Amino acid sequence: MSKRAYNFCAGPAALPEAVLQRAQGELLDWHGKGLSVMEMSHRSDEFVSIATKAEQDLRDLLDIPSDYKVLFLQGGASQQFAQLPLNLLPEDGTADYIDTGIWGQKAIEEASRYGHVNVAGTAKPYDYFAIPGQNEWKLSKNAAYVHYVANETIGGLEFDWVPEVGDVPLVCDMSSDILSRPIDVSKYGMIYAGAQKNIGPSGILVNIIREDLLGRARSLCPTMLNYKVAADNGSMYNTPPAFAWYLSGLVFEWLKEQGGVAAMGKLNEEKKRTLYDFIDASGLYSNPINLTDRSWMNVPFRLADDRLDKPFLAGADARGLLNLKGHRSVGGMRASIYNAVDINAINALVAYMAEFEKEHG
Amino acid sequence: MSKRAYNFCAGPAALPEAVLQRAQGELLDWHGKGLSVMEMSHRSDEFVSIATKAEQDLRDLLDIPSDYKVLFLQGGASQQFAQLPLNLLPEDGTADYIDTGIWGQKAIEEASRYGHVNVAGTAKPYDYFAIPGQNEWKLSKNAAYVHYVANETIGGLEFDWVPEVGDVPLVCDMSSDILSRPIDVSKYGMIYAGAQKNIGPSGILVNIIREDLLGRARSLCPTMLNYKVAADNGSMYNTPPAFAWYLSGLVFEWLKEQGGVAAMGKLNEEKKRTLYDFIDASGLYSNPINLTDRSWMNVPFRLADDRLDKPFLAGADARGLLNLKGHRSVGGMRASIYNAVDINAINALVAYMAEFEKEHG
Repeated sequence: MSKRAYNFCAGPAALPEAVLQRAQGELLDWHGKGLSVMEMSHRSDEFVSIATKAEQDLRDLLDIPSDYKVLFLQGGASQQFAQLPLNLLPEDGTADYIDTGIWGQKAIEEASRYGHVNVAGTAKPYDYFAIPGQNEWKLSKNAAYVHYVANETIGGLEFDWVPEVGDVPLVCDMSSDILSRPIDVSKYGMIYAGAQKNIGPSGILVNIIREDLLGRARSLCPTMLNYKVAADNGSMYNTPPAFAWYLSGLVFEWLKEQGGVAAMGKLNEEKKRTLYDFIDASGLYSNPINLTDRSWMNVPFRLADDRLDKPFLAGADARGLLNLKGHRSVGGMRASIYNAVDINAINALVAYMAEFEKEHG
Repeated sequence: MSKRAYNFCAGPAALPEAVLQRAQGELLDWHGKGLSVMEMSHRSDEFVSIATKAEQDLRDLLDIPSDYKVLFLQGGASQQFAQLPLNLLPEDGTADYIDTGIWGQKAIEEASRYGHVNVAGTAKPYDYFAIPGQNEWKLSKNAAYVHYVANETIGGLEFDWVPEVGDVPLVCDMSSDILSRPIDVSKYGMIYAGAQKNIGPSGILVNIIREDLLGRARSLCPTMLNYKVAADNGSMYNTPPAFAWYLSGLVFEWLKEQGGVAAMGKLNEEKKRTLYDFIDASGLYSNPINLTDRSWMNVPFRLADDRLDKPFLAGADARGLLNLKGHRSVGGMRASIYNAVDINAINALVAYMAEFEKEHG
């Protein structure tokens, strides 16, 4: 195959082709400077201009208030699971966590090593097919923060509402749905997101944090994991992942050209509706998630007969519809349809699913 | 300028042009798979083959014994400064550190937050122009490890010998000279190196660690910073910095094509000799470092009159000789001449320096 495939990978995920083309064109010689972005000092005017523009474009896209810092960090969301309590959970404090799936549980497990964690709400009674309403939550009186995962990439659950937690800082892992539709940043104390779904390549993470939450790190927090150190040094306490930062910036620029997150939200609404509507109307495919809690980004589905999984995947591969196999912990199929996966990919997938159903249904 | 410049940047530094060309060619479609390496699941056969080959090529290049693990981590050397004591320094233990410059000092400062640090040797009496001989060191009786920095990127000092520390694990920050010439890995307990000098782009770090040193992490070490967790999961406990890993692999492949580290050592010896010989013979330029301790990778030099710095740099820029300005903490000039900077770059630099001396000397 020499043309680009339709890539439904959960992450690292598809990137906009226009972004890759631009990176390709500039790879050996950025703006006539005779070197690659990968070969620039991170202190150079050139790279600082790239980094600054990326941050500003992200601020524009999400309308980030001026009392929030934007950090570009390493280690992914899994590192945040420790970094968050090391920065924001006092040794004698309590943090509230909501368990809606595997990522929420991983965050809980790691935070529990650093202090008291109260699992204030859980999707367990619903077999993780529905998000527990806030009326079912048992929030602590004086939590250091409330943590939840906006979109469970594996289970395919997504909040379509923002918890109301009063003055307690709301912290959200938005790794797999940031920039997919508009959000109100001011409702959060901190938002973090690994890049490899809707931002850029893996190896970089965006952290949007309200300034008053800086400077609370524990004495034994590694300097490189201290949010205030990162903030005070423009995310360049040491050499940042420069190329990943640059690529993220190209994605932000591309998103602005597409009309920003409002426009992406409309496209994403159409994409997920097309796919869920087809699944719900079919006799062969099914998605188990409560209607209002269905993910816009990750659509897991099962075939009525598991023995059809292999031929389904083989046929998909042959048509350039890649990475549809579900996560090993849940089985079945999963189509991840982030911003860079356009409606043509959805239409191609649905056409194939219909054809396969006709043959095997 | 539309051609490639001669790039003497200290890091992120020049990469081999052949590597960038290959990455460019494969950027939108790796091996006919219809997607970029950046868009692949890190669990896919394709990426696992890339990751495995990179590790094997590095093992071949450095002749890494089989009882060593090779880890691909994030956060750079500055994160190792905390990660090392969190993994290898018991709370009541002592670690020996050698201070040969700014990076050694940063390592000492961070480690001191986690336990007792004995500065066993220091270049301070020599104004950091010479490395203290081991006969001057005061090693502890039962150190958890001995740490030193093989090459001080800013000061321009490099060990041309390996400390003898008996059964105590020797830990070395080799960020700026790994792969520049042959080393005997078996003399070390652990070697770590940020990629952005001699390995690949920033955002990835190589850690070569003897297996018996795994599993000693403190109870509060973040899971993502635990060497054993990384080792047990093939450096994929979570999504790794996949594209940086791939590019590092391309550099390893390129190094093998060049004849490996023995061949690079010969080239690097010629490069540094050409430059130091010219500096020593000139009346305008000088390098203050003790002859046997001079860095092969980073050559700082001063002009006899500081007022010539600006015209020197302007002339260099105009000739496509980039990033020669010294680190702000020491001033003057610095030419970083890593593996990807070839003898043509050195000759072009020396020719310009001679011309400039004729005009201004």
